[in-house]
Amino acid sequence: MWRLYQFPLCPFSRKVRLLLSEKGVPYELWRENPWDAGDEFWALNPAGRTPVLHEADKNITLCDSRAICEYFEETVEKMPMINGTVASRAEIRRLVALFDENFYYDVTGPLLHERMKKRLILRQPPDSKALRQAMKMAHGHLDYMDYLIDTRPWLAGSTMSLADLTAAAQISVADYLGGIDWSGHEQTRGWYSVFKSRPSFRPLLSERMEVIQPPSHYGEIDG
Amino acid sequence: MWRLYQFPLCPFSRKVRLLLSEKGVPYELWRENPWDAGDEFWALNPAGRTPVLHEADKNITLCDSRAICEYFEETVEKMPMINGTVASRAEIRRLVALFDENFYYDVTGPLLHERMKKRLILRQPPDSKALRQAMKMAHGHLDYMDYLIDTRPWLAGSTMSLADLTAAAQISVADYLGGIDWSGHEQTRGWYSVFKSRPSFRPLLSERMEVIQPPSHYGEIDG
Ligand SMILES: N[C@@H](CCC(=O)N[C@@H](CS)C(=O)NCC(=O)O)C(=O)O
Ligand SMILES: N[C@@H](CCC(=O)N[C@@H](CS)C(=O)NCC(=O)O)C(=O)O
Repeated sequence: MWRLYQFPLCPFSRKVRLLLSEKGVPYELWRENPWDAGDEFWALNPAGRTPVLHEADKNITLCDSRAICEYFEETVEKMPMINGTVASRAEIRRLVALFDENFYYDVTGPLLHERMKKRLILRQPPDSKALRQAMKMAHGHLDYMDYLIDTRPWLAGSTMSLADLTAAAQISVADYLGGIDWSGHEQTRGWYSVFKSRPSFRPLLSERMEVIQPPSHYGEIDG
Repeated sequence: MWRLYQFPLCPFSRKVRLLLSEKGVPYELWRENPWDAGDEFWALNPAGRTPVLHEADKNITLCDSRAICEYFEETVEKMPMINGTVASRAEIRRLVALFDENFYYDVTGPLLHERMKKRLILRQPPDSKALRQAMKMAHGHLDYMDYLIDTRPWLAGSTMSLADLTAAAQISVADYLGGIDWSGHEQTRGWYSVFKSRPSFRPLLSERMEVIQPPSHYGEIDG
């Protein structure tokens, strides 16, 4: 069976978990904190990052969430997530990069730094200016999502795709860390609550990262 | 014809240029500095980043270098660059991410910040500690490349792939900015000089970014 090396608030691991569940691929979770990973983990992934997916019996190791998703897209037909014309596929991959890189850089990454790393590793209080800035950037990204959802049923087009899974994964971590103010973003909020009710999403919402508690609306489908 | 929005030292644009040349896809260059791009560019790419590839007649816009490369892999058969079994393809994509993200974060990004942005935009002298740190990190990455090339003809396996183009693109920018000390890295140096002699690579090596001069060995095939 596949083993996923991850920690509960890693947005890239969440994307992979959503994809595996949607495609019906069984896997087990293996807790790994990249900030204090040992030699065994570094041997699996020389980049030292989660997620890593490993199949011991077949001796396969997959690293990098996009490489992992492309692998399952190529090997499992159920629930295609990078689908349609070449132009649609390029649009899906553009949005995956936008959420994995820009949203993460502007919002999820700073929130993880201020609220998780400072608490668990650095033992420092969060910097309220950095938190305000991340929340401000989140509004900008949600505005863009509102615009997309105004013009299309799903983020990248007419069907659910890896773009939706990627955005939902990033947003769910940002929301856990109190960084999302939903007011004024009814379109994206509606899209997200549809997502939250999917069976693939439920396990993520009930998990907790030690010490850090999410706001009360986090796990609620209409929250 | 395709128009590539880029600037000479953008490593992600260099990767796309190498891929287009290897595949024989004609394109024209369009100079764009993401740090002072106008509304027109932001309308093409809401992430505000180079590279962007645009075909006005067909009204197609492609953003994000990985999405662009996957697009041409799917549409142009010549010189496959994400090829082989699903496992090989995953290995290629793992290495693409390693160079685009880790090498860029550790080496190319800091060098661009210290030697290009501080010179052209911030009008500050480079921080010599940051430069030393980037060069030290470059050694670590080159050690890993030496190891890969010791065990395989090309970075990801038996044939040239997008992993090689990605690594060469990052290294060429780092080398331009004086960040690569080749001593002790004979394997990677040999691999790189084979690369430098390819017709796809020659135009990159003869280009210059205004004000910033590369070291003398930069453009030489045995340099
Ligand atoms: N491009 C990678 C990014 C993965 C990533 O940045 N993971 C974070 C945890 S959320 C990590 O392991 N960071 C540790 C580090 O970069 O040293 C992916 O998509 O899998
Ligand atoms: N994932 C993107 C990264 C592109 C990127 O970071 N480009 C840089 C120039 S080398 C840029 O435009 N930076 C400006 C910014 O991030 O605001 C890709 O592969 O195309």
